[in-house]
Amino acid sequence: MDTNERPIGIFDSGIGGLTVAREIMNHLPGENLVYFGDTARVPYGSKSKETITRFAFEGVNFLMKQAVKMIVIACNTVSATCLDELQQAVPVPVVGVIEPGARAAVNATVNGVVGVIGTERTINSGAYIKAIHRLNSSIKIFSRACPMFVPLVEEGWLDNEAAVFAARTYLGPLKKEGIDTLVLACTHYPLLKPTLRKVMGDQVFLVDSAMETAREVARLLREKSLARTGGGPATYRYFVSDNPAKFKEVGERFLNRSIDPISVIDPETGAGR
Amino acid sequence: MDTNERPIGIFDSGIGGLTVAREIMNHLPGENLVYFGDTARVPYGSKSKETITRFAFEGVNFLMKQAVKMIVIACNTVSATCLDELQQAVPVPVVGVIEPGARAAVNATVNGVVGVIGTERTINSGAYIKAIHRLNSSIKIFSRACPMFVPLVEEGWLDNEAAVFAARTYLGPLKKEGIDTLVLACTHYPLLKPTLRKVMGDQVFLVDSAMETAREVARLLREKSLARTGGGPATYRYFVSDNPAKFKEVGERFLNRSIDPISVIDPETGAGR
Repeated sequence: MDTNERPIGIFDSGIGGLTVAREIMNHLPGENLVYFGDTARVPYGSKSKETITRFAFEGVNFLMKQAVKMIVIACNTVSATCLDELQQAVPVPVVGVIEPGARAAVNATVNGVVGVIGTERTINSGAYIKAIHRLNSSIKIFSRACPMFVPLVEEGWLDNEAAVFAARTYLGPLKKEGIDTLVLACTHYPLLKPTLRKVMGDQVFLVDSAMETAREVARLLREKSLARTGGGPATYRYFVSDNPAKFKEVGERFLNRSIDPISVIDPETGAGR
Repeated sequence: MDTNERPIGIFDSGIGGLTVAREIMNHLPGENLVYFGDTARVPYGSKSKETITRFAFEGVNFLMKQAVKMIVIACNTVSATCLDELQQAVPVPVVGVIEPGARAAVNATVNGVVGVIGTERTINSGAYIKAIHRLNSSIKIFSRACPMFVPLVEEGWLDNEAAVFAARTYLGPLKKEGIDTLVLACTHYPLLKPTLRKVMGDQVFLVDSAMETAREVARLLREKSLARTGGGPATYRYFVSDNPAKFKEVGERFLNRSIDPISVIDPETGAGR
């Protein structure tokens, strides 16, 4: 197959990466996509570096077998844990979600005070602090883990009393520090944007790392002359390691379109189940 | 080793089973315990029957290697999914958490209208409805999945605004149905008891399945003459498949005592890591 016709592979520990898939579909409507969500072993956030790395290699190897031309690691935990190793291991470009979000934050901030919110593991990894400081070491960063945000999003509680309470509790201290830019360093968080905006006010710029990652994918496709040129509508295929029914139900809210076809595979062997 | 001296094995997908361990420690202070929490693969609730069964067998096999005299499946998801298979597979008594909770509910209700709350999988399995109806088929049951309760407990948000909002949202419809008994069909939920009590009022009896399971263990030890008779203080050992630091931090809130010693093992092989 002509390389440009090959799909872009998207890997996530579960459902959250669909916000990245959605942005790629919006920005690059001609590109074919293969999504793999490791729903049998989600969430990765509470697992060790060794376990996450092993699972990520299994996911990426599965995508390579689908003859992808590029891989998007649409998962902050994996991007923070082992992106370099993955980039060194496969012969196609591998894009994470951290670098694009960090660059957008550095470009957006005026007062040089930036907030970063994500899962416990992403925040504790310090990956965003490192990525932002590599670009501009004088930026002050205040970060905060928000463990309730993922379950709130998956329950569809995007703007009720519990969501607003959680947002106030987590974001209050960041607001007090005077941040003018807030990085949503978790792929679930874009769905909470209206609530985060309400709590933070209009003066704070929200960096949506799903959207920034889609922009980075577009840039790389141009740079490497990998953009699809053939005609015909783009095809989207979805693979999960467990529970396709729940992935479909919750995922369609993330993606804002129907999820079909969807297949279940064993990530340890890549075989269908 | 004398059979009676052998430890009781407790298996859970993660941390929640520690509420069952705590009740066993309180009711049976002489018994040695070995706890295994499969923290690398938690939560089981969103996984398929096949996956859960495979993981449960690995956990139970690991406990059998620790020469346990009895196994407690301190996990509603596993108890609802494959308790029979586990009981048939091993030569020691295997106790689940569903039967004890169901029996307590049947004994407690006066008006014959019972509520059951748990994870999505436990509720969708219908296991409590079946277990209660086996004991008394005329009892009316209203059940409800409460997906936010586990993350609330793990975040330590036991009685703040978000916890009360979630409890009101989930329990309101059960209250309206006039239940006089509410089964907490998830091992995390006992930590939410004060909030659940506040929302449900003093007239509703809360069945704590962790406590009921400890009573069932005590009964079985007597019936099978398996109670420990030797002197010396009881020993407690903890095994997890990942992230011992988080297990210790969150688990000590569940257990109300220090967690030590703790070891990390690979559930697929039983080997230490």
